Amino acid sequence: MSKKPSIPKGTRDFSPAEVAKRNYIFSIIKSNFEKFGFQPIETPSFENSETLMGKYGEEGDRLIFKILNSGDFLDKVAADELQTINYKQLTGKISEKALRYDLTVPFARYVVQHQNEIEFPFKRYQIQPVWRADRPQKGRFREFYQCDADVVGSTSLWQEVELVQLYDSVFSQLGLKGTTIKINNRKILSGIAEVIGASDKLIDFTVALDKLDKIGEDGVKKEMLEKGITEEAIGKIQPLFNFTGTINEKIDKLSNLLSTSVEGKKGVEELQFICSNIKELGLQTASLDLDVTLARGLNYYTGAIFEVAAPKEVAMGSIGGGGRYDDLTGIFGLKNMSGVGISFGLDRIALVIEELNLFPETVLATSKAMFINFGDKEALYSMKAITKLRAENIKVELYPDNAKIGKQFQHADKRGIPFAVLVGEEEINNQEFTLKNLGTGEQQKVDYDKLVVLLK
Amino acid sequence: MSKKPSIPKGTRDFSPAEVAKRNYIFSIIKSNFEKFGFQPIETPSFENSETLMGKYGEEGDRLIFKILNSGDFLDKVAADELQTINYKQLTGKISEKALRYDLTVPFARYVVQHQNEIEFPFKRYQIQPVWRADRPQKGRFREFYQCDADVVGSTSLWQEVELVQLYDSVFSQLGLKGTTIKINNRKILSGIAEVIGASDKLIDFTVALDKLDKIGEDGVKKEMLEKGITEEAIGKIQPLFNFTGTINEKIDKLSNLLSTSVEGKKGVEELQFICSNIKELGLQTASLDLDVTLARGLNYYTGAIFEVAAPKEVAMGSIGGGGRYDDLTGIFGLKNMSGVGISFGLDRIALVIEELNLFPETVLATSKAMFINFGDKEALYSMKAITKLRAENIKVELYPDNAKIGKQFQHADKRGIPFAVLVGEEEINNQEFTLKNLGTGEQQKVDYDKLVVLLK
Repeated sequence: MSKKPSIPKGTRDFSPAEVAKRNYIFSIIKSNFEKFGFQPIETPSFENSETLMGKYGEEGDRLIFKILNSGDFLDKVAADELQTINYKQLTGKISEKALRYDLTVPFARYVVQHQNEIEFPFKRYQIQPVWRADRPQKGRFREFYQCDADVVGSTSLWQEVELVQLYDSVFSQLGLKGTTIKINNRKILSGIAEVIGASDKLIDFTVALDKLDKIGEDGVKKEMLEKGITEEAIGKIQPLFNFTGTINEKIDKLSNLLSTSVEGKKGVEELQFICSNIKELGLQTASLDLDVTLARGLNYYTGAIFEVAAPKEVAMGSIGGGGRYDDLTGIFGLKNMSGVGISFGLDRIALVIEELNLFPETVLATSKAMFINFGDKEALYSMKAITKLRAENIKVELYPDNAKIGKQFQHADKRGIPFAVLVGEEEINNQEFTLKNLGTGEQQKVDYDKLVVLLK
Repeated sequence: MSKKPSIPKGTRDFSPAEVAKRNYIFSIIKSNFEKFGFQPIETPSFENSETLMGKYGEEGDRLIFKILNSGDFLDKVAADELQTINYKQLTGKISEKALRYDLTVPFARYVVQHQNEIEFPFKRYQIQPVWRADRPQKGRFREFYQCDADVVGSTSLWQEVELVQLYDSVFSQLGLKGTTIKINNRKILSGIAEVIGASDKLIDFTVALDKLDKIGEDGVKKEMLEKGITEEAIGKIQPLFNFTGTINEKIDKLSNLLSTSVEGKKGVEELQFICSNIKELGLQTASLDLDVTLARGLNYYTGAIFEVAAPKEVAMGSIGGGGRYDDLTGIFGLKNMSGVGISFGLDRIALVIEELNLFPETVLATSKAMFINFGDKEALYSMKAITKLRAENIKVELYPDNAKIGKQFQHADKRGIPFAVLVGEEEINNQEFTLKNLGTGEQQKVDYDKLVVLLK
């Protein structure tokens, strides 16, 4: 094969600089997860197909990558059957495993499978790649990392409070000031649909409301009418179209609007608990806002719904989201296991940090110094120093070949290594090193102890 | 679905304790890779099939997991064609991607694809999972991590020297004393086959020699005879059957044996360079040994061959291996790109560290303290302290529910949390906390500042 090799569409190679930047974000997310008492688990990259299929709707099933059975996968398929079979039927016969589509379903499977070993409430985090056969486009990939923290086995709203703090803590530590943590509650949306007599149209109603930012009040009303929501019903939710004020004012408005709905009032109470406790505790750099149009994950969220918006100066969608789901593990036969969790969108966070120039320079730190190679005798003398320096945790390296000195300096330069160390006959005789600052060009002769001090 | 869910055979779930232990090993390997000047890259989990197929021999091709094309994968296969097609032919038509089988071929592909952005010599490391449809057995999995460090673009033997040091540095830092880094050279094996007139039987010869440990001198000789190597030839290699002494003595013996082989003499020279420089530089806890029976990876290694044996008190195969390959990227059309690299066997290393009880206790560190939940008022007072403690990087948590106190203590106990903090009416009034040592049962009243000091 001599044509230039490539990678599958929607996938990425990560260069050293890119890995370093991503690891910087991962490590801040991880350390905060752990500070908040979450523990890591890992699940296999592929699951039995029956674990994943049917959990993400029809669209999801289509986007799951299936793995072909090993060996003669056709041996259980009759030849005449093959002539009439369609690809969906055949898939079930020749594929039994599929790549992880998200971290939530594997987590639910993990909890059910290991329920006797787990001490509940169980606070777990998981940072692993997932795969989706989505059409690739800017910012959307077929392989990407999810970073999830969830608590299962408790309905306490203190967890929602802590998850808001966790978002704030991560984004503050990343230097990302001005994020907005938007909160809503599924029960509020159900309550509104109930009081306007449109409970049967909850999804249509919330999908339309969710577009308020994009298509405006008139657009939303038009769409609601088209979906069969009456003029009268729409009239009742007029306050939602100009839903401003402090969180407390918003909660008061909702409280009035929902006074006749048991479920709605429960939603207001939950919001109130979370928001007032966050107010008492304070946030570092994020702000909490009640966004009644927020309707993500309505298929599974049953209580709080979260979404994090990047600082306003960056044009970027949400950089995180989550919520409360009352029946995480029911699909695998374990009832009454309420969960609440949040997720961080690594790729988008990386883009935001890049755009705002917030990656610290130390993230890309390469070796502190490169020893120039003047031949084996000099190299051995250098390697003795390098061995000792590394034992002191100082990153240094030897240029491996006795190449032209210009080429060696160029290598150090391109790699962004700040110092070169030169060792010739004279240095060996005097037990010295010539340390050259590759930025300023300055050089000085130093002994080993001085070298350690200068490179440390 | 109500039957208990499971995972595909050969895959594993990792619990928090297991992840913590594995991350401990990963982090030591990573920090040493970086100290030695290696930089991380990451490649996609799946590659185009043509990138992987044909690179690992027929057996390898069989063990590669193939991914079914998305959508109607049958639409390009004629119905009548399906009746006669065999599964191998069909695979090519319905699958275009495959899961990574190792890190070496994707790395070669990466180097060729990004050759214009890479500054050579390129020292890269890569720690990612690979997948093989091998029959699962004890210690062999279908998904496992590889940890590789390679240098490409230089033939300097200083790299072999550094890789020996790198092994020593990692295993020493893991506390694993008494590892043996075995070294051999492909050119030595070729030279021996040459001087005994069995160059055409190099593989048979080395495969037999490699079994010396297991089947003994007589067994090896019997196998060689069966493979058509003459009595006379076997007589010439008699010194290899009792190949003891210091490295220098062994090198002298080889030097005599190989005096008529150009390639063999080159191999002796290379060994000499590596071993004498390692002797000059010293190793921390590992020992270097010349093992002329070592023949791993003979299909691709062209120079040095490495293998690391665990300390003798543990019955475990090799925990690492590597070597020099002169034509890493030739398969993708880029010639003359010599590489040398080593790999760490994470799973086996973890088993050895476990067996020798070398995991530090801090690896499993959970939260320092759990605040008992006596109700919302007390919880808010606790959360104020927790928020401040976390800002000081102290891992603490609140039990989320106002459950029976016995249940809460039991939770802390099962999680291995060393302290509980109790907050009631009295503590709130006095702005205090009751700190209870869950090991000794002792408890004391402290103010916030004292609490920080005691938990830090």
